[in-house]
Amino acid sequence: MAKGAFQTLPGFRDFRPDDCAVRNYLFRNFREVARRYGFVEYETPIVEATELYMKKTGGELSTQLFRFEDQGGRDVTLRPEVTASLGRVLIESQRAYQKPMRWFEIGQCFRYEAPQAGRTREFYQFNVDLIGEADPAADAELIALTIELMRELGFKQGDFVIRLSDRRYWQNFANDKGLSAEQAEELLAIVDKLERDKEGKSGPKLEKLGLTLEEVQIAINSPGELSSDLDAVLANLDARGMRDDVEVDLSIVRGLAYYTGVVFEIFDAKKKKRAVAGGGRYDTLVSALSDGKVDLPAVGFAIGDVVIRNLIEDTPHAFEKMQAALKAESACDVFFIVADQAQQANALTLASKLRAAGIAVSYTLTPSKFNKQFKAAEQARAPLALVIGNEFPEVSLKTLATRDEVKLSADDSIVESISQYLKK
Amino acid sequence: MAKGAFQTLPGFRDFRPDDCAVRNYLFRNFREVARRYGFVEYETPIVEATELYMKKTGGELSTQLFRFEDQGGRDVTLRPEVTASLGRVLIESQRAYQKPMRWFEIGQCFRYEAPQAGRTREFYQFNVDLIGEADPAADAELIALTIELMRELGFKQGDFVIRLSDRRYWQNFANDKGLSAEQAEELLAIVDKLERDKEGKSGPKLEKLGLTLEEVQIAINSPGELSSDLDAVLANLDARGMRDDVEVDLSIVRGLAYYTGVVFEIFDAKKKKRAVAGGGRYDTLVSALSDGKVDLPAVGFAIGDVVIRNLIEDTPHAFEKMQAALKAESACDVFFIVADQAQQANALTLASKLRAAGIAVSYTLTPSKFNKQFKAAEQARAPLALVIGNEFPEVSLKTLATRDEVKLSADDSIVESISQYLKK
Repeated sequence: MAKGAFQTLPGFRDFRPDDCAVRNYLFRNFREVARRYGFVEYETPIVEATELYMKKTGGELSTQLFRFEDQGGRDVTLRPEVTASLGRVLIESQRAYQKPMRWFEIGQCFRYEAPQAGRTREFYQFNVDLIGEADPAADAELIALTIELMRELGFKQGDFVIRLSDRRYWQNFANDKGLSAEQAEELLAIVDKLERDKEGKSGPKLEKLGLTLEEVQIAINSPGELSSDLDAVLANLDARGMRDDVEVDLSIVRGLAYYTGVVFEIFDAKKKKRAVAGGGRYDTLVSALSDGKVDLPAVGFAIGDVVIRNLIEDTPHAFEKMQAALKAESACDVFFIVADQAQQANALTLASKLRAAGIAVSYTLTPSKFNKQFKAAEQARAPLALVIGNEFPEVSLKTLATRDEVKLSADDSIVESISQYLKK
Repeated sequence: MAKGAFQTLPGFRDFRPDDCAVRNYLFRNFREVARRYGFVEYETPIVEATELYMKKTGGELSTQLFRFEDQGGRDVTLRPEVTASLGRVLIESQRAYQKPMRWFEIGQCFRYEAPQAGRTREFYQFNVDLIGEADPAADAELIALTIELMRELGFKQGDFVIRLSDRRYWQNFANDKGLSAEQAEELLAIVDKLERDKEGKSGPKLEKLGLTLEEVQIAINSPGELSSDLDAVLANLDARGMRDDVEVDLSIVRGLAYYTGVVFEIFDAKKKKRAVAGGGRYDTLVSALSDGKVDLPAVGFAIGDVVIRNLIEDTPHAFEKMQAALKAESACDVFFIVADQAQQANALTLASKLRAAGIAVSYTLTPSKFNKQFKAAEQARAPLALVIGNEFPEVSLKTLATRDEVKLSADDSIVESISQYLKK
C-alpha cells in the first residue's frame, strides 16, 4: 500500500465484491434457516446509551467497549452485542406480541480487542431469540435451529459438535460447597477459562474458594444425574434426528454473566478453534433491566460471521457448497455486444425492456471493438451475450460457455426467449 | 414508556418486525434493480479514520460528524456517507478490476443533525457508483437505474421528477463573471440553498460576490444552450423511454463539494419534500484523496431509506404495492397443531423433515389446548395448519383462509403435497 494512503482501522474489514458475496451467502443462510423455524427479523441501533451495557449484562465486555461522548454530551457505545438492546425493546413493547416470540437479527457488533486470527473489532452476529417460554422445549428448538444452520452451510455430522451444559449444575455445586453468590460467580469464571488455562492458574484460584482442581474436574467428567431440563432437551433433539450432534459437557458455562440455565456452544469436531457460536437461557435479564417490572423467560443464541467463515473454509465439503452457490451468481445475465454503433439507441431501448422484465443486462458504455466487448462479457461472467448489429431487429444470442448461437428478433417475444435460455 | 426505562438515542430507530420488513422490502428492491444493471455489492466499515472525511469531501458534513477517540487514541468517525470509503478502496485496489466498475453498497450512515421529520441521525443509504468511465453514457446509465428503482417501488410517471443539472454550467458562469475559485464555491453554495431561502438571504450574499439575484435567476430559468453532456444524457434516456421523467433544472448543484459535472436529484412531483435521492459526477475525488496518484472518473448516486419510505407511504399505488409484497410474506408456511400430546415426538420428527426441505414450520412449544393452538396459527398468519392427532401417521392439512381440509400421510410424500398447497 502506498505510504500515506488511507487505510481501514485495525480490526475493521472492507468487503470487496468477492468478500461481500461470501458475507451475503452467510446472511442468506441465516435468514433462510430462521424462516424455516418461523422466526421474524428485527434490528436495533448500532449506537446505544452506555448505561444499557453497564447493568447486569457486563462480564468481560465492559472493558472492550467502543465508548464515547456524542456531540450532545451523551455517554454512548457501539453495541458489543445485541441482547441488551433486545431487552430494551422487550421492556417497551413485549405486550404487543403473542408469546413465544421468535425473533432474529443480523447486525454488526463492535469490541475493542487485540485483532488476531478469527477476532476482529467488528463482526456480524446472527442473533436468534425465543422469548416468553420457560420450557426446555424452547431450548431444544433453538439448538435444533443451530444444527439445521450448520447442515445448511454444508457441514456434516462429525464436522461439528454442540456442547451442552446447564449453569444451574454449577449453582448447585456452589451451594453444596457453601459458596457465596460472589464466589459462585467466580467459580463460573474459572470453569469458563479451564479449557484454555495453559499456565495452570485455575488450581490456585480454586484453592482460594476452598476447592481443588481435582474435585472440579470430577464434577465436569462424572456429573452423575443430569438436570431434568438437559434430559428433556436431549430427548427432544433425539426425536428430530439431532441427538448425535450434541454432547453434554459441563465445562461449558459461557462468558456472559446473564445466562441462568441451559447453555451451549458449537465447536469444530476437534475443538481446536474458538467456539463458532453459543447461547443459552437468560430468564432474569429482562427483569434485571426493567428493575423487576417485566419478567420474561428467554433463550437465545448468536453466531459470528468471522469464525463460521473460517470453519467453512477449513471444511472442504462446506467450502465447495459455498463456492458452488457463489459461482451460480453472476453480475449479469446478458451482456450486450453492439457490433454496429448506429444501433446504440436500439440497444438501450432493448436493455430497458429486458431489465424491466427482471433480466440483468450489462454492456460497455461507450463504443469499443467487437473483441473488446466480447472479452468484457466473459470478464463479467455473463452466461449469455446478445450481439446487436446492422441486421437489427434481428439479433444473435450466444451462449458463452458453448459458443452456441441463435438468431432472435428484438420484438416482444425476446424476453421470453432469453428467460428460457437463462433457465438452461 | 415507564420512567427510567432505557430508550433509543434521539434520532435512532428500532426496527421491530413490521418496520424491519419494510426496511427489507426496500433493500430487496435496491438489490434487485442493481442486479438488473449489472452492479455488484460491496461494503466498507461503519467506522473510519476521521482524516478520511477532512480531505476534499467535507462541505457541511464536517460539522455533523459522530467523531470520537477510540481506546487506542485514534481520531475516528462513524461514516456520514460512503463515497470517501469507496475512494479509499479504489486507491488501494482499483487496478484489480475491469473498468468500468459497477459497484453498489447498502449501508448505514450517521449524521449528528437535529432529528425532525424525514431526518434521523442514522439512516441506510443505497449507494451506486459507476467508476472509470468519463463518458456521459455512464451518467445516463446511473440515472436510468434510479428511474427503474422508482418504477420498481411502484411509482408512476408524474409521481416523481429527476432534476438534472451540470455544475460546469456554474463554473462557466463564475468564470464569465471573473469570480475566483473560492467565490465560485460560494456561488454554488448560494445556488444550492436558493430554493429553500425563505428569508431572502441569498440576494445580499450574491451582492458580496458582485452579482444580483436577478441575473442568477435568469441564468437558472433561461440557460440558453445546454452542455453537450446534458444533451447526450437526455438523448440516451430518450432511447430508454425515460426522457419524460427528467427535467433540466440548473438550480440543482448538490451540497457536497466533490461533484464536478452532471448532477441530479429526485423529487416528488410537487417538489414539496426533501430530495429523495441525488448524485452526480465526481471525477477528481479519487485523485484528490490519493494526492494525484490515482485518477479515476466516476459518477455515483445515493438514496436514503427514510425519505423514500415517507414518499412511498404518501403515494397510494406505491404504498399498495409495498403492502401486497409484505402481506405475501408470512412468518411460517405450516403451523403444527398437536391434538394428541402423545404425538409430540412424531410432530418434531415431521417438523425437522419439512424444515430440511425448506418449508417453514412453527408450533406452540408446549402442550396447549386445540383452540389455543389454532388461534396461534392464525396469529402467525400461517396459510396452512397441520393437525397431528391420534390417527398419526394420518394427519389433516387445513387451509386456514378457506378451512378446507385434506388428509395426508406423514410419509415421504408429505413434503411434495405441502409444497403443492403452498403454491396455490
